[in-house]
Amino acid sequence: MHAQQMISTHPQERGQTGAALIHCIEECYDCAQTCTACADACLGESMVQSLTQCIRTCLDCADVCVATGTLATRRTGSNVELVTAMLEVCEDACRSCARECERHMDRMPHCRICAEACRRCEAACREAAGAMSPTLQ
Amino acid sequence: MHAQQMISTHPQERGQTGAALIHCIEECYDCAQTCTACADACLGESMVQSLTQCIRTCLDCADVCVATGTLATRRTGSNVELVTAMLEVCEDACRSCARECERHMDRMPHCRICAEACRRCEAACREAAGAMSPTLQ
Amino acid sequence: MHAQQMISTHPQERGQTGAALIHCIEECYDCAQTCTACADACLGESMVQSLTQCIRTCLDCADVCVATGTLATRRTGSNVELVTAMLEVCEDACRSCARECERHMDRMPHCRICAEACRRCEAACREAAGAMSPTLQ
Amino acid sequence: MHAQQMISTHPQERGQTGAALIHCIEECYDCAQTCTACADACLGESMVQSLTQCIRTCLDCADVCVATGTLATRRTGSNVELVTAMLEVCEDACRSCARECERHMDRMPHCRICAEACRRCEAACREAAGAMSPTLQ
Repeated sequence: MHAQQMISTHPQERGQTGAALIHCIEECYDCAQTCTACADACLGESMVQSLTQCIRTCLDCADVCVATGTLATRRTGSNVELVTAMLEVCEDACRSCARECERHMDRMPHCRICAEACRRCEAACREAAGAMSPTLQ
Repeated sequence: MHAQQMISTHPQERGQTGAALIHCIEECYDCAQTCTACADACLGESMVQSLTQCIRTCLDCADVCVATGTLATRRTGSNVELVTAMLEVCEDACRSCARECERHMDRMPHCRICAEACRRCEAACREAAGAMSPTLQ
Repeated sequence: MHAQQMISTHPQERGQTGAALIHCIEECYDCAQTCTACADACLGESMVQSLTQCIRTCLDCADVCVATGTLATRRTGSNVELVTAMLEVCEDACRSCARECERHMDRMPHCRICAEACRRCEAACREAAGAMSPTLQ
Repeated sequence: MHAQQMISTHPQERGQTGAALIHCIEECYDCAQTCTACADACLGESMVQSLTQCIRTCLDCADVCVATGTLATRRTGSNVELVTAMLEVCEDACRSCARECERHMDRMPHCRICAEACRRCEAACREAAGAMSPTLQ
């Protein structure tokens, strides 16, 4: 992705966007795609009946990740509080989805890959939110 | 909108979805459309230079409102904590956007309408989050 | 919704946005919410196994409707061709989803309501695209 | 991104998803992030007044790319016609956005990077749509 390159050419950036936020933006878009794919793969399984909670958490996580990646991409003006709050919700959504996918990952390889993507995005959101909070003080 | 009708036919609903959440879902979609329109109308103004923060808050608010309306619509399984956290972020996004639009609403009729939609959605999110929290205990 | 009010205050509107497009924008957001709800209600049914194609068409239709409603809301600059093409894709997505929901609507009241919303949105997209095409010539 | 890995674990895949579609999904998410960033960077420029059409095409392109990437990710059931139609709209949106960004790219490095991302996504959509069409016959 081009998150790093784009931020380096932003007229209102003066080096404030740390590596943590840039990494997090990329993880959010990746996790959105992976969760969309996992929801759909679960839907295609013969045991779909036992995967409905997993489909639900994957769909929710995909929606939250796209919204978070989009908000975090915008650097004009200031909305540090909103981006930080959104990163925290995204961390929660990723954790929930990872936990649900981990319950099925022995039998469902797509759930294993999805759980890994969610855990990475969860960590990236936590680090990005932590890196932003000093600017809130 | 058909939020009320759809929820009344949901197989896993047993009357838990209160009027507050249903009203909030409708306000979220309405506010998303209104904020998208206000960002675009601001972009078309000759004084766009002084409206860039308003465009930013409108775009962010639209993205958060669509994600919130979508998550709140899903009643399968359980994710009360995530929906409640998202409603709180949406309340914040609407408040920020309303404040920014209110600064311009004397000269910009679209900002006045948008501020009103944001204030209604802000209140609806607060009420829906309040109505959900007892179920968290 | 406030689509009519917002468009009447847009600085670059000069009466070009006909009633057909305004009506279509509102139907797109309504259909997006209804399809999201129907996908989730299908997921909650004990016979979910036989509803997976319906869940798929509902999820696709919801995504297309939000994108179409958003693009059609923007009146700054010009992108008549893109909006017209998107309206045509949305008409297709609504028709597919309506057909699938109609197969289940005797037993599934949420599919009946969703089919009706899709048929209304399908018609609204067709009319809005038809009203735009003269401006393409 | 994990598009390739996820598709290889999908229960209803039997090798039908060619490399062209997988590549296209990744380009769509990348282009969505890049266009969101370019719209925001344009908004932060002192000459924003002359970039409003560019902001418009970037916002539209981002919305179309997310919807296209999401639809193309779903492999359950069948909706080849809808995905193909959406790929064609996305190709158009990317071409329009690339053309607009190319007009400013000498002075705006973010427009140069965005134009490149749009041209890559445009080509990826064209190739993916071409690879799907035989299955329509």
